[in-house]
Amino acid sequence: MGTLIANPTRCAAPTYRREEPTHTKGANSMADDWLTTLITATPQEGFELAITLSRRGVKYTQPDTDVLHQLRPDYANSADSLTAASQVVATNFQTVAAANNYWR
Amino acid sequence: MGTLIANPTRCAAPTYRREEPTHTKGANSMADDWLTTLITATPQEGFELAITLSRRGVKYTQPDTDVLHQLRPDYANSADSLTAASQVVATNFQTVAAANNYWR
Amino acid sequence: MGTLIANPTRCAAPTYRREEPTHTKGANSMADDWLTTLITATPQEGFELAITLSRRGVKYTQPDTDVLHQLRPDYANSADSLTAASQVVATNFQTVAAANNYWR
Amino acid sequence: MGTLIANPTRCAAPTYRREEPTHTKGANSMADDWLTTLITATPQEGFELAITLSRRGVKYTQPDTDVLHQLRPDYANSADSLTAASQVVATNFQTVAAANNYWR
Amino acid sequence: MGTLIANPTRCAAPTYRREEPTHTKGANSMADDWLTTLITATPQEGFELAITLSRRGVKYTQPDTDVLHQLRPDYANSADSLTAASQVVATNFQTVAAANNYWR
Amino acid sequence: MGTLIANPTRCAAPTYRREEPTHTKGANSMADDWLTTLITATPQEGFELAITLSRRGVKYTQPDTDVLHQLRPDYANSADSLTAASQVVATNFQTVAAANNYWR
Repeated sequence: MGTLIANPTRCAAPTYRREEPTHTKGANSMADDWLTTLITATPQEGFELAITLSRRGVKYTQPDTDVLHQLRPDYANSADSLTAASQVVATNFQTVAAANNYWR
Repeated sequence: MGTLIANPTRCAAPTYRREEPTHTKGANSMADDWLTTLITATPQEGFELAITLSRRGVKYTQPDTDVLHQLRPDYANSADSLTAASQVVATNFQTVAAANNYWR
Repeated sequence: MGTLIANPTRCAAPTYRREEPTHTKGANSMADDWLTTLITATPQEGFELAITLSRRGVKYTQPDTDVLHQLRPDYANSADSLTAASQVVATNFQTVAAANNYWR
Repeated sequence: MGTLIANPTRCAAPTYRREEPTHTKGANSMADDWLTTLITATPQEGFELAITLSRRGVKYTQPDTDVLHQLRPDYANSADSLTAASQVVATNFQTVAAANNYWR
Repeated sequence: MGTLIANPTRCAAPTYRREEPTHTKGANSMADDWLTTLITATPQEGFELAITLSRRGVKYTQPDTDVLHQLRPDYANSADSLTAASQVVATNFQTVAAANNYWR
Repeated sequence: MGTLIANPTRCAAPTYRREEPTHTKGANSMADDWLTTLITATPQEGFELAITLSRRGVKYTQPDTDVLHQLRPDYANSADSLTAASQVVATNFQTVAAANNYWR
């Protein structure tokens, strides 16, 4: 899965069991359509979409993949950094869960 | 219970008194279905699900269990880190509580 | 009242004037039922429940009471730590207030 | 007005032009009723109530007024601490504003 | 425009193209009415109101303008402080946007 | 794309495939209309608007472009700073997503 500051080739959406709809068509270019819907089939897919959104928030801010690579060790080996990442995911999960009416 | 950065074998969902529905089938693999519903029987189960979500936010970001083990002492012995963890749980609990219409 | 990182015997819910419903039956064991409802009689009781939730978020993460005792001085004597604690309480109060339809 | 970590005698609710309802009857004791409603006459009173809630979040966590006094200089003279305080106020203002249906 | 920790004479509301309603009548005194409505004509005015709310959150906490002046250089020259300020604004903008039903 | 603390000429809204409505008419002056609607055609455009809002939150606080330039290296090369930026974006995305009824 990688870290929030992920290897670009890992920045694609997590693997989905179903193929439709595809939240992320292409991960390497911001010009690509990577977010066409917030609707997911299951809560778990929604959580994984929240992770994608969190990574994208980083990538829009620092698109240089070399820099992201250099930062990864600092990041992924700090407890507080990991908690901060989980906070971002939790915030994005709120959005995705509301979009899906909480999969009720 | 362990810390937010938990022992992987402790990363499973907290013990539920009832068995259905199981929020976490398998904790060791992201490929597993671990989140099939946000609905819980009681507020307390909802709070415990919020803890599971918070831990998963960490684990997706740093899946290497050896690293997580090494980070645990720093983390669990810092007052500020514990408060930050409680902040993540509070954010996820907002989502779970809304999903359950606040168990009203 | 204690701090967010509270003495375990203080980790119980704040004193309620009314006895029903009891949000916290037993504070020393996670196995206990400590959260049976988010409904409170008054906004102030709701705020106090938010404090309980915030403390529980810490306690699930670090259940070792000896560690919590050791951390308390650092924590309760830091302005920034206290502000961070108030942030967690504010987040949980959002949940409790919504559950009670803002006591309107 | 004082700081988030306020002089206890300043921890009372901000001055209201109208006297009813009184959000804070007594500020020096947690046993007092200090929050009987989230409803305010105006948005500004709501903002001031959010400040009261933010201070109470600190005070429940550290009720020792001598400690709070000692912490005040660190706190009120740090830009980042002031921003963090404003974050807590913003979070509590969300709650108060929703309770008042945004004074529409 | 100034910073979140603004020159008091700059702490007034941002310039509005329309004059009614005035969110901030007087900025120099907390006793003044400075927030009479959350309703704005446009999203941009709403965003600017969110900035005013964020500054007020600081000013209620530290009303001493000499102190605020001294803190400004530290604050406005730190990337992390600016991001934290933007976080407060984002939180207040959630409130203002909801109050205006998102200007739909 | 640049960083949250962006080159002013990059502070304009991200490139849209469609031209209407234009969220940002002029980026160099706060006097310009830069936010006329929160409605976007797609979730991705909404996410990009959230980035614009996050940058504007910084720019209102520190409008001096020379300072922003000097801060950029510190910022864009810190993992924790990037996570904090992603947190701001996530918060603003909540607002934009709600405004668009989650593009359902």
